[in-house]
Amino acid sequence: MPVVKPFVVERIVDLILELDVLERMPRMGFLLGGITHPESVAAHCYAVALTAMLMADAMPEPVDAQRVLRMALLHEVSEARITDLPYEALEYIHAQTKSAAERAAAQDLLGPVDRAYASLWEEFEAAETLEARIVRAADKIQMMAKVLQYERERRGNLADFWGNVEYNENCWGVALARKLFEEIRRRHEQDERGSRIECCG
Amino acid sequence: MPVVKPFVVERIVDLILELDVLERMPRMGFLLGGITHPESVAAHCYAVALTAMLMADAMPEPVDAQRVLRMALLHEVSEARITDLPYEALEYIHAQTKSAAERAAAQDLLGPVDRAYASLWEEFEAAETLEARIVRAADKIQMMAKVLQYERERRGNLADFWGNVEYNENCWGVALARKLFEEIRRRHEQDERGSRIECCG
Amino acid sequence: MPVVKPFVVERIVDLILELDVLERMPRMGFLLGGITHPESVAAHCYAVALTAMLMADAMPEPVDAQRVLRMALLHEVSEARITDLPYEALEYIHAQTKSAAERAAAQDLLGPVDRAYASLWEEFEAAETLEARIVRAADKIQMMAKVLQYERERRGNLADFWGNVEYNENCWGVALARKLFEEIRRRHEQDERGSRIECCG
Amino acid sequence: MPVVKPFVVERIVDLILELDVLERMPRMGFLLGGITHPESVAAHCYAVALTAMLMADAMPEPVDAQRVLRMALLHEVSEARITDLPYEALEYIHAQTKSAAERAAAQDLLGPVDRAYASLWEEFEAAETLEARIVRAADKIQMMAKVLQYERERRGNLADFWGNVEYNENCWGVALARKLFEEIRRRHEQDERGSRIECCG
Amino acid sequence: MPVVKPFVVERIVDLILELDVLERMPRMGFLLGGITHPESVAAHCYAVALTAMLMADAMPEPVDAQRVLRMALLHEVSEARITDLPYEALEYIHAQTKSAAERAAAQDLLGPVDRAYASLWEEFEAAETLEARIVRAADKIQMMAKVLQYERERRGNLADFWGNVEYNENCWGVALARKLFEEIRRRHEQDERGSRIECCG
Amino acid sequence: MPVVKPFVVERIVDLILELDVLERMPRMGFLLGGITHPESVAAHCYAVALTAMLMADAMPEPVDAQRVLRMALLHEVSEARITDLPYEALEYIHAQTKSAAERAAAQDLLGPVDRAYASLWEEFEAAETLEARIVRAADKIQMMAKVLQYERERRGNLADFWGNVEYNENCWGVALARKLFEEIRRRHEQDERGSRIECCG
Repeated sequence: MPVVKPFVVERIVDLILELDVLERMPRMGFLLGGITHPESVAAHCYAVALTAMLMADAMPEPVDAQRVLRMALLHEVSEARITDLPYEALEYIHAQTKSAAERAAAQDLLGPVDRAYASLWEEFEAAETLEARIVRAADKIQMMAKVLQYERERRGNLADFWGNVEYNENCWGVALARKLFEEIRRRHEQDERGSRIECCG
Repeated sequence: MPVVKPFVVERIVDLILELDVLERMPRMGFLLGGITHPESVAAHCYAVALTAMLMADAMPEPVDAQRVLRMALLHEVSEARITDLPYEALEYIHAQTKSAAERAAAQDLLGPVDRAYASLWEEFEAAETLEARIVRAADKIQMMAKVLQYERERRGNLADFWGNVEYNENCWGVALARKLFEEIRRRHEQDERGSRIECCG
Repeated sequence: MPVVKPFVVERIVDLILELDVLERMPRMGFLLGGITHPESVAAHCYAVALTAMLMADAMPEPVDAQRVLRMALLHEVSEARITDLPYEALEYIHAQTKSAAERAAAQDLLGPVDRAYASLWEEFEAAETLEARIVRAADKIQMMAKVLQYERERRGNLADFWGNVEYNENCWGVALARKLFEEIRRRHEQDERGSRIECCG
Repeated sequence: MPVVKPFVVERIVDLILELDVLERMPRMGFLLGGITHPESVAAHCYAVALTAMLMADAMPEPVDAQRVLRMALLHEVSEARITDLPYEALEYIHAQTKSAAERAAAQDLLGPVDRAYASLWEEFEAAETLEARIVRAADKIQMMAKVLQYERERRGNLADFWGNVEYNENCWGVALARKLFEEIRRRHEQDERGSRIECCG
Repeated sequence: MPVVKPFVVERIVDLILELDVLERMPRMGFLLGGITHPESVAAHCYAVALTAMLMADAMPEPVDAQRVLRMALLHEVSEARITDLPYEALEYIHAQTKSAAERAAAQDLLGPVDRAYASLWEEFEAAETLEARIVRAADKIQMMAKVLQYERERRGNLADFWGNVEYNENCWGVALARKLFEEIRRRHEQDERGSRIECCG
Repeated sequence: MPVVKPFVVERIVDLILELDVLERMPRMGFLLGGITHPESVAAHCYAVALTAMLMADAMPEPVDAQRVLRMALLHEVSEARITDLPYEALEYIHAQTKSAAERAAAQDLLGPVDRAYASLWEEFEAAETLEARIVRAADKIQMMAKVLQYERERRGNLADFWGNVEYNENCWGVALARKLFEEIRRRHEQDERGSRIECCG
């Protein structure tokens, strides 16, 4: 009968404890946008995994939902060592440099538990498979839903997020993602019309 | 060619927006234990899903990891409507009453998107399948790892958590869970010995 | 000469220490309404006691202000064990179930000090005496004044609170309460007109 | 039949709204003592009123509990305008200067509602009547209970509070207050012994 | 060869440690204005020093920038002992009383390190030299820039700050300060017009 | 007569507003070390400038204190765009890559106001002049003083900071810095002995 190897138990606990810091790490893009006490990276990852699951299940074509979920849970692990470099920083640290740093950190964190996790991280980063593209899109759909939520709570100064469509509303070739971005934007515009009518009606 | 039904898009966005509150909801058991600004319910769910994935993959027997992940992501959704009733409240609100309330809230939240999600919630609650028991155990393994972490950060007054073994370290018949609880407790005791030696050595 | 019984001293300190958690417990209805770091239950109780005192003293008929003040100070003690179940939760946990749980918790907390405190809690809950009705109304008057304050500070998304008149602006048959709700609503509407004029003037 | 005068309603709402800031005002003495996010002035007032009620009811001699409660609720109102000057500031701002400023602020806040409230504030400040002395003692009993609580939560650096017995544990001639201070100190010393035994046992 | 006297090292560390509390001390005027978690006094001092440096370097006449910078860094040190008395408190504590208390606290803090620091504090307080007037103006320019920033983040209720021109936009006879206040106000008005157009356009 | 060029006024206000985010940006190394709500980057800069001033004035040899102060105020400006990359991240992002990114960001921020500021940033980064080395050392002295402070407040898990002497207590060839590090470490060890004696005495 197969048995659990003892060192795996230790490594699992190591990883849980090290990733714990994501619960205290603020999403830096929102911090720069004037949100005090923004959501944590861990809370973001939860909502991305949930969004990705809902997407995988609503897709008109077959999707390996398990891989979608695994990638969603792993896609930010490197931030436990590198922290959350926001969009603004990409003007100074090349996207490739950032990506290479994240790859190395993800490998150092995940490799000791199971090499397969590092491969999943690579698949997400490569953004080629349908599953990876769903998670890439979910990452931004969650972000724009959160922007909508902050606006409803009258927090921060996030108007710029709606202007950067190419980066923030990239659907990665997934039609469902396009529809979700449209629905979120529709509600944003409806809120704006609502406050116009309330104001001048 | 199958198409995404429009109302599904709306319902997905509804659910994402409603569950967003979990990011601001403190884990009440930790609040009662003297932790100011404890982790959020959303951050807890992220760490439980991660723990459950690591467990499913380390199990010596075959496990349907996909169902494990789905249950982990869904197991606290009812708290968006009912809030997080801590262990202490169970002396006054019967576990069955709490469970029935959570069931109804989970159904109201998840049913409009897909009845299958409500079934997964039921499977978790019933705690009979191997997959459900893994998530039940992961829920407590994450909690005790967080207790260990808070102790290392010298926050709060959580000594009681180590005393309630039956409830807090329930392994739900999963041998791997037992090993993980033991490993966490071993580190806790090692920390305590360390501070004894540092203090009196 | 009568003397203080020693165990009373111990029980008083027990109660003060256990109720201390109310200082860290967020008002959950505001949390659900998008207020980050809302007022604590303890701060709410302070403001309710103050409001109830001002009301008792402004009533055109005789009122036992002492009983009013005692009820105001005791009306939320059960939340130290059960936490603060918001309005939204009442759809899933019957008001009677909640009330029974609160009664039992209040008795367990207050009984060991003096049974008279548990009786005051009952009087508040029954909402029959004039004194109890004043505190019931003060509980909501404070809440709506806080909603007004949050709006002035541009926090959260509390518009729904103004729509639920039956529950949130229940005057419990106290004419003065009606006037206070009207005055708060008058200021709310004045603020709204003010921002309309500022905006379109 | 006597009627409520309309302006009273306006003034009550004015006072509730102005005192609302006490919910956001940190207790500055705790802030100086290294407590991040200490209790608010409003939460302190709640706990003082509760403590004073428990004391009034446990006194071996007759006490006008109503006056006790009123003074407890009013004793910090001036801080809504002057803020909370801690003990350390008294080396630079004479106690009399501080007291005169608080008196003027209390009168400006309370006078427009009812002159009787300003008189109650004076009675508290004068600290001569039994009722006033109970509230003065309760103010410090609550503070030392909070210090005990912070120590149990391993927050801050409050050891100095136990050394300043004359100021921090002034019982104002109330024997019951002496017993309460002793009981709190007994628990503090028991905790210290406990951690010594745990450490070196 | 001159040597550092040992006690100076101790006194430098004493001062650094005591002024550390400014990092946790909220700017009380903003707290009264409905800002939750406002900037700290230390963060304010950083921004004032930066503003004063930029001003000193942009002045058309010669300025001793070093003295400007030293005064900016020292101008709030007394708050480590007295806390931050806001504008509202000046109605009750005479400006001269406040100034005398601050002087004594500044001397007690700075004197043991070097009497010259206490003199710089005096120079700032006297507001006569060009250098002192630049820092006095910078203190308010930073404040009004922060008000603008809070408005952009939709926090609090700071409209009153724009009305108190004499106190909040005092340029202390420095023409450049006048221009900076005008520029900040111009942006504030532009924002207001922007939201009017967005709203009614 | 020389006049202030209008665009300078605009650029000064631009810079003040953009650097405002440093007040909300947590020091990430402390966050990774388990400190919830650590000091902000702005508060750190204030304390570094203060420390550097005290050092410059206590040096046995002549120092251009003005340049010291300017460098201290400017040394972290790039973090407004790149955020605060902690020590742990340097394993994945080369120190040179980080330095080049910071240089570019500092130039973009400071250049439009005055090229001289960018040069001061370069001088700090090169760490060759005595003035630059004082600020480099002050940057770490402030950090270790803050570690001492957090330990006294029993926050976080910062023991590792005392072990990394080469990086955290680099005196950059400044003898006074060595003495300050020694004094801070002496107090740390004295605290540890104190708690040992208290515990086992």
